[in-house]
Amino acid sequence: MSSTEDLDYPQTILEYNSGFLVSKVMFTACELGVFDLLLESGGPLSSDAIAAHLGTSTTGMERLLDACVGLKLLAVELTQEGALYRNTEISNIYLTKSSPKSQYHIMMYYSNTVYLCWHYLADAVREGRNQYERAFGVSSKDPFGAMYRSEEEMLKFMAGQNSVWSICGRDVLAAFDLSPFRQICDLGGGGGALARECVSLYPNSTVTIYDLPKVMQVAKEQFIPPEEHRITFHEGDFFKDSIPEAELYILSKILHDWEDDKCRQLLAKVHKACKPGGGVLLVESLLNEDKSGPLETQLYSMNMLVQTEGKERTAAEYSKLLEAAGFGEVQVKRTGKLYDAVLGRK
Amino acid sequence: MSSTEDLDYPQTILEYNSGFLVSKVMFTACELGVFDLLLESGGPLSSDAIAAHLGTSTTGMERLLDACVGLKLLAVELTQEGALYRNTEISNIYLTKSSPKSQYHIMMYYSNTVYLCWHYLADAVREGRNQYERAFGVSSKDPFGAMYRSEEEMLKFMAGQNSVWSICGRDVLAAFDLSPFRQICDLGGGGGALARECVSLYPNSTVTIYDLPKVMQVAKEQFIPPEEHRITFHEGDFFKDSIPEAELYILSKILHDWEDDKCRQLLAKVHKACKPGGGVLLVESLLNEDKSGPLETQLYSMNMLVQTEGKERTAAEYSKLLEAAGFGEVQVKRTGKLYDAVLGRK
Repeated sequence: MSSTEDLDYPQTILEYNSGFLVSKVMFTACELGVFDLLLESGGPLSSDAIAAHLGTSTTGMERLLDACVGLKLLAVELTQEGALYRNTEISNIYLTKSSPKSQYHIMMYYSNTVYLCWHYLADAVREGRNQYERAFGVSSKDPFGAMYRSEEEMLKFMAGQNSVWSICGRDVLAAFDLSPFRQICDLGGGGGALARECVSLYPNSTVTIYDLPKVMQVAKEQFIPPEEHRITFHEGDFFKDSIPEAELYILSKILHDWEDDKCRQLLAKVHKACKPGGGVLLVESLLNEDKSGPLETQLYSMNMLVQTEGKERTAAEYSKLLEAAGFGEVQVKRTGKLYDAVLGRK
Repeated sequence: MSSTEDLDYPQTILEYNSGFLVSKVMFTACELGVFDLLLESGGPLSSDAIAAHLGTSTTGMERLLDACVGLKLLAVELTQEGALYRNTEISNIYLTKSSPKSQYHIMMYYSNTVYLCWHYLADAVREGRNQYERAFGVSSKDPFGAMYRSEEEMLKFMAGQNSVWSICGRDVLAAFDLSPFRQICDLGGGGGALARECVSLYPNSTVTIYDLPKVMQVAKEQFIPPEEHRITFHEGDFFKDSIPEAELYILSKILHDWEDDKCRQLLAKVHKACKPGGGVLLVESLLNEDKSGPLETQLYSMNMLVQTEGKERTAAEYSKLLEAAGFGEVQVKRTGKLYDAVLGRK
């Protein structure tokens, strides 16, 4: 829709207006298990059958299914026995829990946590800080204390991050040839999906995931199979505790959580621990230098305001942070997907 | 983005995921007065100047402005003094409070009320009913009691509806030649924007707005200028009280609030009061008969679940309701915008 057409009737603005309706329809169909049921059923089902299976009202379910048809997440066929619904291909791949590329967990995190924080976006802009206090009654001062305020919330967050790497992990790790680095440390590596992708793509590498003790506990128990001997764990707080020596440090979606001072402090610590000839790989969503986009990254930068102490940055800003910490030969690779890669060398 | 491309990378799903971020960025820039300030300033402003004028943090404002640039609601120019922001044309027309086509009020209603009700969409689908209780702690049993739970909320709703008619009113009233009807009754006509559009389009008509006493009070005081003698007011509850005689009844976005039984009851009452040769004009967003769309209407039907006792319907469903009440010669006109028109004759 061109801007000229919009001057007569604000189609684009109406679409923005309905954005949250669209998100919540998809999130809710995921949460109620619509796509899982239709994958398992082996054939199309009526709205009444789906409502009965999932224990919902029929009047609510029928409308939810029809809205999913409008979003092309479901297809409907009108038969003599009434309307029958089935998954579209993208729903089978991305919206069912069992799919290797499932986005289910990140959607549950968005739907139940992020959505409510964003209800207070105007307050976040006024105050310039995150909104855990208004949204969940927990202190805004320690973002990760707030995000991990219960084991359930921590699990949702870790599983959600793992979903992201199931669609973006390979691209960021293949952006540069990392095969010269054998000993890799994934700082704040959480649920470990990126570490698993790394040892799969670089079979001669070993990866140490470094994260808070309670995060490592859950990662070992729930996310990393014990037979995966190329992945080890290191418990600690990378701001307070020492960082082990390694050839390559991966900081994926870490710097965007923190203000410049803390980023510089962390990178200096990484530089000190890094073996000569080693490097650091930043995995972040990069803003254009001219502030024009990408839209997704601009929105994520707002989310950093609402949920953390950080922001999204341009490639030049990351390069500057790396260089201030002593890293050189900085290279930037945009992947065309959500996350990009920046490599610095010691 | 075609579905085949989405199989490799779920661009469409990621856009749906970010839908609520997009809505809230636009709503928040409206709420904080960004577009109003940039309209009044007469020239582009820096992020710092905007933050200072509007009393917000600079870190939050800069990101909000940049996200608006990504949404093409603002334009940015990089100058020697830094980035300067200005409104785009659609923002001047639709997002400033003072514009005759302003959508500001409907956005504030969406952002502060509807957004929070939709946080409980999964519950609404499970239970098949509206979510005022979870969202606002007020009883779900009387939707308009809940919607008008304070004068402030009622005002927001009325002003919001008026914004809708500022962009869709003329089309629904011009869908049929209504000039033969001189004496018109707008049932549940609220803030009166549609009534004003009606006397402007049909200069020989008079319109009686029929609504609850507290709604009529506010309409008289705040929305309808006293010099508009072609508009009169009738206080009442159209389910409980009598309906005055008229040649044409307008029911705009009324039937979609109620279940079939109540619609039949109301239409029968309207038919009885209607002068012979008169008619009824339903203004509603029509679903396609094959359940395929339009998406916007499917989403609104979900909103009816979350906020009312009703739903959106197809043209055939409205025709059936009209015919059951005794109306005939039913004609349907789709406008191509949000709301369509259905005319029945007595």
